[in-house]
Parts: sequence; C-alpha cells; structure tokens
Amino acid sequence: MNMTVTTRTPATPVAPTRSRLRPLGLDEVTIHGGFWGHRQEVNGRATLAHIAGWLEREGWIANFDLAASGRLPAGRRGREFSDSEVYKYLEAVAWEIGRLGGAGGAGGAGGAGDDGADAATVDAVAELEAQFRAVVARVAAAQEPDGYLNTRFGRPGQEPRWENLEWGHELYNLGHLFQAAVARVRTRPDADDGLIDIARRSADLVCEVFGEGGIESVCGHAEIEVGLVELARATGEKRYLRQAQLFVERRGTGVLPDIEFGRSYYQDDMPVRDADVLRGHAVRANYLAAGAVDLAVETADDGLLDALGRQWTNTVARRTYVTGGQGSHHQDEAFGDDFELPPDRAYSETCAGVASVMFSWRMLLAQGEARYADLIERTLFNVVATSPSAEGTAFYYANTLHQRRPAEHASADEVSPRASSSLRAPWFEVSCCPPNVARTFASLAAYVATADADGVQLHQYAPATIRTTIDDGREVALEVETAYPAEGSVRVRMLTDAAEPWTLSLRVPAWAESARLVVRLSGEELVQTFEAQPGMVSYSRAFAAGDVVELELPIVPRFTSPDPRIDAVRGCLVVERGPEVYALESVDLVEAGIGATDVADILLDATVPPREVDGRVLVGVRERHPEIGPWPYGDEVDAAPVGASVQEVALVPYHDWAERGPSTMRVWIPV
Amino acid sequence: MNMTVTTRTPATPVAPTRSRLRPLGLDEVTIHGGFWGHRQEVNGRATLAHIAGWLEREGWIANFDLAASGRLPAGRRGREFSDSEVYKYLEAVAWEIGRLGGAGGAGGAGGAGDDGADAATVDAVAELEAQFRAVVARVAAAQEPDGYLNTRFGRPGQEPRWENLEWGHELYNLGHLFQAAVARVRTRPDADDGLIDIARRSADLVCEVFGEGGIESVCGHAEIEVGLVELARATGEKRYLRQAQLFVERRGTGVLPDIEFGRSYYQDDMPVRDADVLRGHAVRANYLAAGAVDLAVETADDGLLDALGRQWTNTVARRTYVTGGQGSHHQDEAFGDDFELPPDRAYSETCAGVASVMFSWRMLLAQGEARYADLIERTLFNVVATSPSAEGTAFYYANTLHQRRPAEHASADEVSPRASSSLRAPWFEVSCCPPNVARTFASLAAYVATADADGVQLHQYAPATIRTTIDDGREVALEVETAYPAEGSVRVRMLTDAAEPWTLSLRVPAWAESARLVVRLSGEELVQTFEAQPGMVSYSRAFAAGDVVELELPIVPRFTSPDPRIDAVRGCLVVERGPEVYALESVDLVEAGIGATDVADILLDATVPPREVDGRVLVGVRERHPEIGPWPYGDEVDAAPVGASVQEVALVPYHDWAERGPSTMRVWIPV
Repeated sequence: MNMTVTTRTPATPVAPTRSRLRPLGLDEVTIHGGFWGHRQEVNGRATLAHIAGWLEREGWIANFDLAASGRLPAGRRGREFSDSEVYKYLEAVAWEIGRLGGAGGAGGAGGAGDDGADAATVDAVAELEAQFRAVVARVAAAQEPDGYLNTRFGRPGQEPRWENLEWGHELYNLGHLFQAAVARVRTRPDADDGLIDIARRSADLVCEVFGEGGIESVCGHAEIEVGLVELARATGEKRYLRQAQLFVERRGTGVLPDIEFGRSYYQDDMPVRDADVLRGHAVRANYLAAGAVDLAVETADDGLLDALGRQWTNTVARRTYVTGGQGSHHQDEAFGDDFELPPDRAYSETCAGVASVMFSWRMLLAQGEARYADLIERTLFNVVATSPSAEGTAFYYANTLHQRRPAEHASADEVSPRASSSLRAPWFEVSCCPPNVARTFASLAAYVATADADGVQLHQYAPATIRTTIDDGREVALEVETAYPAEGSVRVRMLTDAAEPWTLSLRVPAWAESARLVVRLSGEELVQTFEAQPGMVSYSRAFAAGDVVELELPIVPRFTSPDPRIDAVRGCLVVERGPEVYALESVDLVEAGIGATDVADILLDATVPPREVDGRVLVGVRERHPEIGPWPYGDEVDAAPVGASVQEVALVPYHDWAERGPSTMRVWIPV
Repeated sequence: MNMTVTTRTPATPVAPTRSRLRPLGLDEVTIHGGFWGHRQEVNGRATLAHIAGWLEREGWIANFDLAASGRLPAGRRGREFSDSEVYKYLEAVAWEIGRLGGAGGAGGAGGAGDDGADAATVDAVAELEAQFRAVVARVAAAQEPDGYLNTRFGRPGQEPRWENLEWGHELYNLGHLFQAAVARVRTRPDADDGLIDIARRSADLVCEVFGEGGIESVCGHAEIEVGLVELARATGEKRYLRQAQLFVERRGTGVLPDIEFGRSYYQDDMPVRDADVLRGHAVRANYLAAGAVDLAVETADDGLLDALGRQWTNTVARRTYVTGGQGSHHQDEAFGDDFELPPDRAYSETCAGVASVMFSWRMLLAQGEARYADLIERTLFNVVATSPSAEGTAFYYANTLHQRRPAEHASADEVSPRASSSLRAPWFEVSCCPPNVARTFASLAAYVATADADGVQLHQYAPATIRTTIDDGREVALEVETAYPAEGSVRVRMLTDAAEPWTLSLRVPAWAESARLVVRLSGEELVQTFEAQPGMVSYSRAFAAGDVVELELPIVPRFTSPDPRIDAVRGCLVVERGPEVYALESVDLVEAGIGATDVADILLDATVPPREVDGRVLVGVRERHPEIGPWPYGDEVDAAPVGASVQEVALVPYHDWAERGPSTMRVWIPV
C-alpha cells in the first residue's frame, strides 16, 4: 500500500520536473571500484552500521520509543536536532538499498541487481531493509495524531511547539525526514513501510501551521525548504511547493530575532533574491540555497535562479578554500568576509561541504555549466572524502588546513565533545557529519552523469556503468574505465549500437589545461585526437558498441598560488594534482630524514617543480629554525638563516592526512 | 564602624606583604593631564555615570532589590555574571573617590585633596560617595544570613547553589566583590558603608563550603583567587589566603567537566605549576595567573612563581599580538596555538588586556624586571585605551587588527548582542569590558611608579606628582613633566632635598635603542649625559630640590616585522611609534586623494621609511587592484600590476581608529 505516491521520479536525490540536464538514478549509474567505489564499499560495510550503533547507544532512536510510550520528557537524550540524525541515517540506508539492491523497484534496472547480485549482497540488502523498517516503525509510533513529529518539543514538561524557531530545529528535523522519505520512495516506490506517509502527515501539518494566515516565520536552520520541494516532486502535492516558497520568501525579512552572530547567521538579514553572496552559518546558507534553486526551478522563477547563480559565483570567487571547503569561523560555523580564509582556523565543516555539493548539483542541473561540477569534484575529494577515516568509523567535523600541534587522537569509543578540534572522532555531541557523509556516499552514483535530449554528460570520473535513455527514448549504455584520480585517462566504451547520432560530453576540469580527447571507433584504424579546453568537450556520433572515447587529463602535480587578498596564506603555495589538494605532514619529514620534525620549520623551494615518483608527489624544501626570542616582533625576528640544501619530501593527499599517528600538517607551504 | 579591617594596606590594587618592589598608592601618585590624565578625566566624568545608567537600565542592580524583597527568580535580568559588573563598577568608583578625593582616609595625603581640591571636585566626590553607598546598601540587603550573595542561584525556582561551578560564575562574582571591597577599604579605610563586611561574610562562607573537607572544586572562571588573596592582605585573615591556595592547587586536576573547548578553556587541563604557557580563555588564564602570583608571593612559593614567570615569557614570545592583545579565537575567547595570531580574527578582548596588565603588574612587583612594564605599557596604549570611544561611552569588547568591511556603527542607545563584532557599543549582553576599563583607568596612577629600599622606579610615563617614602622612612617627592607619548622627553624634577643619596630609576622601553639620560643638577652648569639601554636606567644622588633627571626616548615612527612563524601576517609590516601601534584606515586613503578607498588595495613601500610631519605619521604606499576572477587560486591570480607611483598616506594610532565614520582598517600592511 503506497497510495500517497502520485509521481514517479528517478532514484536520485534531486529530481526537478524541468531542468537543463536530467539527473540519472541509482538504477542508471553504478560505480565499480576505484576511489569512489571503495568509499562506497566502506560506507556500506562499516559506516552505516557504525552510525546505527551510535544512534542506539546515545539513545537518539530510543527518544522515539519514549515519545511513543508517553514517557517524555524524562530520559530524552541528545540535542534538539538529534531526530534529524536518525532521518539522515534512514536516507543513507534508503540510498544504500537502492545502490546495492537495484533501485527503482523490486526488479529495478541497473545496480548490483542487474549484474546478478551475489548472495552476500542479497543478504546485505535484506539486513538493511529490516533495519530500515524497524527504525521507521519506531519513528512512526512517535508521530502524534495531528502529524507532529519531534521528540524534543510540545509535550507537558517540554517547551511548546513552534515557539523557539530560531534554535529549536523543529522544521529542520522535518526537512531531513522528508529527504529520507523521498529517498525511500524513489528507490523503493512499492515499499509498504509507510515513511512517505509519515512525511506527508508532518508536511500537511507544517502547511497548516505555517501556511498563509499561519505563523509567519521560518526555521533558524534552513533545510525544510529543500525537503518540501523534493516531497512535492515525489508526491505531486503542490501545497508543499507553495509552503517552501513561503519559507524562502519570508527569510531575510527579519522574522527571526537578532542574535550575537547577527541575523545573517541564519540568512534572515536580507531576502534570498537580494543577496550577492552566501553568508552566515555555512551549512544553513547552502541548504537554503539548494532549496531555493529547487524552488526557482519548479516555479520557473528566473530572477531567483539568477540571484542564486550570482551568490554561487561570488562565494566561490571569494569565500571558498582551495579544498572547496566553506566556513572560515569556528564561533558561528560561518562564512567570513571576502578573502577571509585562514587555513589554521578553517572550519570548513564536513556538512558544509555536503551542503555545497547539494547547491552546486542543483545549479548544474539547472544551468549545465561545468564550473558547478568542478566545485563538486573539488569538494568531494578534499572535504567530504577527508572527513571519514580509512575504516569509515571516525569523522572530521571541521577540516583544518593547518595543524600546528600534533593532533591528539580521539577515543574510538567515546563521544567527542570537540567537534571543532579537527579530530576524527567516532561520534560527536553534535553528530551531523557522519550521517551526512553516509547519505552522500550512498547516493554518489547520482552525481556522475546526466542526460539531455541530445546525449549523456559525464561530470565525475569513476569506473562506472551507465545505462539510460536519452530524451526520445533511445537507450544508451556505456562503460567508464578509469583509475582517476590516480591516472588521468578516462576511457568511455560504448556498450550498445545507436541508430542515430547522439552526443557524449565530458567535463574537462578547470585545472586541466592541455587535455585531449581521443576517439577510437571500433573497426577503424584511425585514431582521432582533439584538444579539449576546460569546460565540456563533446563528441557526437551514432556510436557503435566498442567505440571508445577517451579523455586524457594532464594529472601532474602543480603549484597553485593564492589570490593576494587572502592575507592568511600570503607568500605560500599549495600543491595540487588533478582534483586533489596535497598537504605536508610532519610524519613525512621524519620519513625523509629531514632534521625538522615540524612543518613550521619548512620552506618550499618554489624553483623546484613538484614531481611524481612511484605514485608519490615530491617537493623540494629547505629548513629554517628561527630562535624564539622574547618578543615576536621587531627588526630581527625574521633573520634566521634558511638551510642551504634543498631536500625532497613527499606530500600526502589532504584527504589521507592524519592516518599515521599524531602529526603537524599544512596545506599552504611558505616559500 | 569598621571593626573587621585589621591591616592597613596602601591605596593600590595590589599590596603584597613582601615583594621586590613596593607599589605606591593613589595617595602617593597623581597624574596631571596628558594622555592618561585625559583618559582618567573622561572616565570619571562620563564613563562611570554611563555604566551606572546602564546597570540600572538593564536591571542588574535591581536584581539585588528583587533578591532582598524575596521576589526572585521572577524578573531577574542579565546573565549569570551580571552581579560582577555591579561589583566592578563599585571598585571603579572606589578608586575614583580615592583618586579625586585623596586616598587613604578623609584627609589622606596626595591627590587632588593635597592641591586644594576645588569645589567641583568636592561635589563630584560627594556624589560618587552617595552613589557608592546607595549601591552598597542594595547589595547588602541581598546578602543571605549565612553570607551567600548571588542573585542567580539558590532560591526556590533557581538552580541550586554551587552545582554549576563550570558555568555558574558564583565564585567569580565574589572575586569581583572582594576586589571592590579591597579598593574601598584601601582608599577609605574609615568608611562605614560596610562593603568589607559583606565581602568577609561571603568569603567566610566560601571557606566553609570549599575549604578542606568541603566541595573539592573550583570556579569555571578564575577570579576569586586574586580576590581572596587581596582580601587576606586587606583584612589580615589568613583563612582567605589558604582558600585561594586550595583553589589554585585544585585547578588543573580535572575537577571540572570536559567540554567542547576542552578543560584547557578554564585551565583545568594541568596544574598551574606545571604549565609552560597561558592557554584557554584569555581572561580566565590571566586572572588565574594574577591570583597565583599573589599566592606565590604571600606563601613564598618560589616554584610557583617560577612557573608563572615561565608562562608569562612564553605567552609574550608566542601568543601575544603586537598590540599586547591576547586571545586569537572568537569561539572560546581563547589563546590559540603558538604563533596563531590572525589579525582579522584577533579577539584580543579588552578584558584580557586588563587581565594581562594585572598579571604583568604582579610579576613586576615580584621580580622588578622592565619587560613586565613594557608589556603593561603596550597593552594599556593599544588594547585598554582602544576600547573606549573618545567620549568614554562606547566600548570595544573585541579588538580586531584588521577590519575588512567598513564597520557598521552600533546604536548609541541599544544593548549590542554582538560583543565580538569589533563595534564600539554602549553596552553588551556580556558587558564585562566597560567596568573593567573604568576600574583600570580610575586606578591607573598606581601603575606609574614603585619604591624600594633604595629609591623610586618610574615604569609608566605621564605628567605626575609622586610623593612617597623610601624604605628607611625618608620622604621623596618628584614631579614628572612629559608630553609622552607625543614626545619622547620625560623630565623628572625633584621637589625636596635629600640628606642621603637615593636612586631614581627609569624604564627604557625595549623599542628605545638610543635613549639618553640627561642630568641637570640645580646650581651646576654641567649637564651630564648617559646612554641608556633598554631595561632600567638608574641615577643615584642625594638629590636637591630643582635637580632634573631627563630621559630622552627616541620617539620616531618605525617599521616592525613579524616572526616568520606568524603565518597570518607573512609579508607585512606594522608601523609603531614609541609605545603606540599605528593603523592604516580607509578614511585616510580618501583624505590623501588616493584612488583606492579600501585598505585591501594598498601595498606598503618598505623602501620609504615612515616619517613624521606635523604630528602625523606618513608612509609610502602603492595601489593594486586585482580583478576578482572565478576562482581565487591558480597561476595568475597574483598577477595584478602594482601602481608605479608611491603616494603618501597618514596612519592613525590604533587606539584612535573608527572615530571618523565607517572604514576598513589594517594594522599589518602587506609590502
């Protein structure tokens, strides 16, 4: 029984009813191994169970049981947003079921199901299904007759409903509930767990309470906007879209109180359509922007979409770290001013990275420009992939770009109270990041490619199988073979014959300045080679099975300079290689036998280009050991001699740092 | 009736029973005009009334009335530390009465009283006395029979006493009460207002509750330690000293809970005597250090004093801004790691400056080294003097060294919720800084000079009269004539004849590399001139009235470089002149007719030394206007041409910035 679903949408996190590019579902794209396939595998094998364990251990699922049995507020544990972590977990599991078990229905196309799922996968899906249903049942039991669903508010002895909108996160929590329900209905439209009905009842209540004539305010933490539009898309219920529109339009008119951080903290300082740049809390700002893009697309509001494009452009040009990270302030987890991008206090919250991917992906679907996929790639490799440990059971919440003291290691068995300390920890008092990473990894295949009337566009490079139809219903199937980003070759092999020409487009990242497209048609000797400029490179043909289109990206290490207005990294360079940012970690100084054991004592020799040997990126450095005098300012404080000899040291991909014991680290290295 | 005072101590904020140098009271040193005399005058005329008005308006004094009439908790306003602002206000008023009305008793020596106080001063003192007594009476009425005094805890409907030590500030509040009572009893030992008895009753309760066998913990915010030692000194009650010792020794043993910021936030991460550097919340760290010096001195604990000296040395060498400001983090108002000193997010809280002066002053008294007075001078001119507006009715809470966007102006009539935003505002939700500045300015004369068995030492330079006795009881009187820091001459004229030689010592600041001491003895033609190295320069003689010892300090503008480990200001210089740090403010770019209107577009020409013309400090600058590209990292982002012409622009003393409308500002200027 699933009477509430009225619209079939693809098995993907964002499914606009109109857009420049059409997203492909998890039933259309499958990643096989490689950098991201490995991340997905660890996520499915270790991270989801890890999260489920901590949600139980911390009592955040049990809060729903307490609610159902009328025992609240006694015994409730966790912060006011703990319900949302349960919903994000459900969303992640829904995508994972879709990924492993074939999305789009019991017999959906694509995915492991298509390839003949092995017994272990079948077991894994069955277990995830059982877990998913069990948690949904506990959530369902806590929903009140009028649809209200929150374990923290509204009961005798609790704060009343809807009276602490600035900090209460009631609507925020529901936004994540809606996203989970949408993930479920898109990957298992026939499932009878009822999550979509729970979401609808809550959404209906929200529309009653916050609709025209209702409470004229918004949630302090944007998120319900994106949830409502997606729920509208998944259910066909226009009221939800209208409610999202009310929320987007109200924000910025001063409906929330002024606070220490200013109304900009929750983007209530100016209307969305008037703003030029993202500001305030970086997760809030990006979630809001993502929801506003969804709204603009569904309502054909080009003015709003233009405003969001402008905000994206200015935010990327002035307020984004080289990793793609966003948020310069620890205090308010917020964007700083233009060019205020300190590496040593980079907050660059993992969730802000996830949220930025959400915003960029929606802009990409709406406008089709490669720059959006460029930022997604940068952010996935250097923020989202940095958060989890290799084992997938500890996470960075903040992602510093400069560690001055050897990082202590968090206990593997305790909640860390210090989300902001750049420790990978198994769980946090505010534990938004682990499930946010998990839902992103589980749905990652959705970001690989899109389609339009004319063909298929590849945006992210991973070994993958893509089977879809282009807009006139023609089937297209292709295999992507690549070791990216270890190597720069992306080989696309056609799996089917096409009667009519269609266009394959591949993204050439902005950093790839001498890329080439090489076309090898089956049965033809001639190899065609084209120069490919950054942006999208396209090749049209009635491809035959076995035809190969190969993009050759120049993946060599390179120095990158900062804009001179970024004061905090003046006189420094960063090394990048392909989409990956590299870091100097003190363990590598020790390994190279350099006297200095702290990155503070190292200068980069910029006259020696970085080079790659046996898969390691090496740079030339010199040592300097200034004395520590009585006062760090004066004529002579900078007089320490620089070591005469240039020594070579290996850098580490930033996402892999802090995996080898306590170390100091810096991404920007002084010259 | 004042039966509880058993020990007469000088009218000064710190009165150790033994020390290397003996502090002089407000009855011994009077400042007449000049930079600091003007600040004292504004403080007395405008700031104290401003604070009294806001304390009433916000209900923070009325909280005591509510307590006295049994109406709490209903109607209580302000944060958990609002009581302390009332006590700091009382302390400021006590010093001001001492300053204006002659400290040390009704007919005390020195001060305005000595010079024949004019009628206006007599009226002002009478009014302050009346205000002081009125507020003390309201505080007294709120004290409970067992001595407990706090408007926020302990009553039905309030949180219980002493159960939220980490955040409750109960003991912190009392520390400020004790300092107020000590200020009163030292400046008006015969007053019958009873504040000292209130303090004693509270202190007695603290000893009962937190003494041996009592609650084995400490307050999350150090302050009671310094209050207890001073109260012990002022009353002779050894129990208070012992209690301070218990508090100092317990801290660092993990008696407080772990929190987001770590136990280092409240210095509970390691014992005071084991630490090498200040860390955590900068005000807490300095208040604790100040109290621990007091304790070490009173208990002859040289190991503890050594530890504090080491902490001072390392903190100044590695964790202090060029202004003397301390605290690099907004989030936890805390010190950062070594050399983590970002100018654009300098927190450099005004209260941390005050607290640093407290710590340094105690080290100076204990050890006599000029470096302590150097830091006091730097901090007074560049942090404490920066906080208040010229009118003395608006204050910086945080003191940024780099303002990227033109600072908005705070409303002159509203509480600012944004203490950290580098706005001078009339009052804050957390309004510790205004009364902290007021008590410092009112007692400023106490920091000018000290005495020892051999003579008198001048530490801070202001036009002043000093009358004291050196240790064998001989009277010494001298007049300091100077326009410092506008000019570098400090002329000390003897007012009395001495039968025996004594030594006048003057501090030569660390920046003064070619200072001279010039001695002109009355009745002698010969002028003696000596080179004076940084540190203390001394001259001994049986001085006669009219003898003049003049210190000539080289006050010319100079460039200062940062230690290369301070990443955030790499490639920048600061201009200093004497003890003052200068800043580039955008209003001066406009005034100089330079095309650039934002300090972001200015480079300093380091080949042109700064020069002084008509009292203005001028530097040569060039413009640069880089384009804002799509991505602020890459090969060409630093390629904007630098303007060919060098233009001159005036800098402003940092403490005077933001007095001429919204502007951008930077202290560290890229070369």
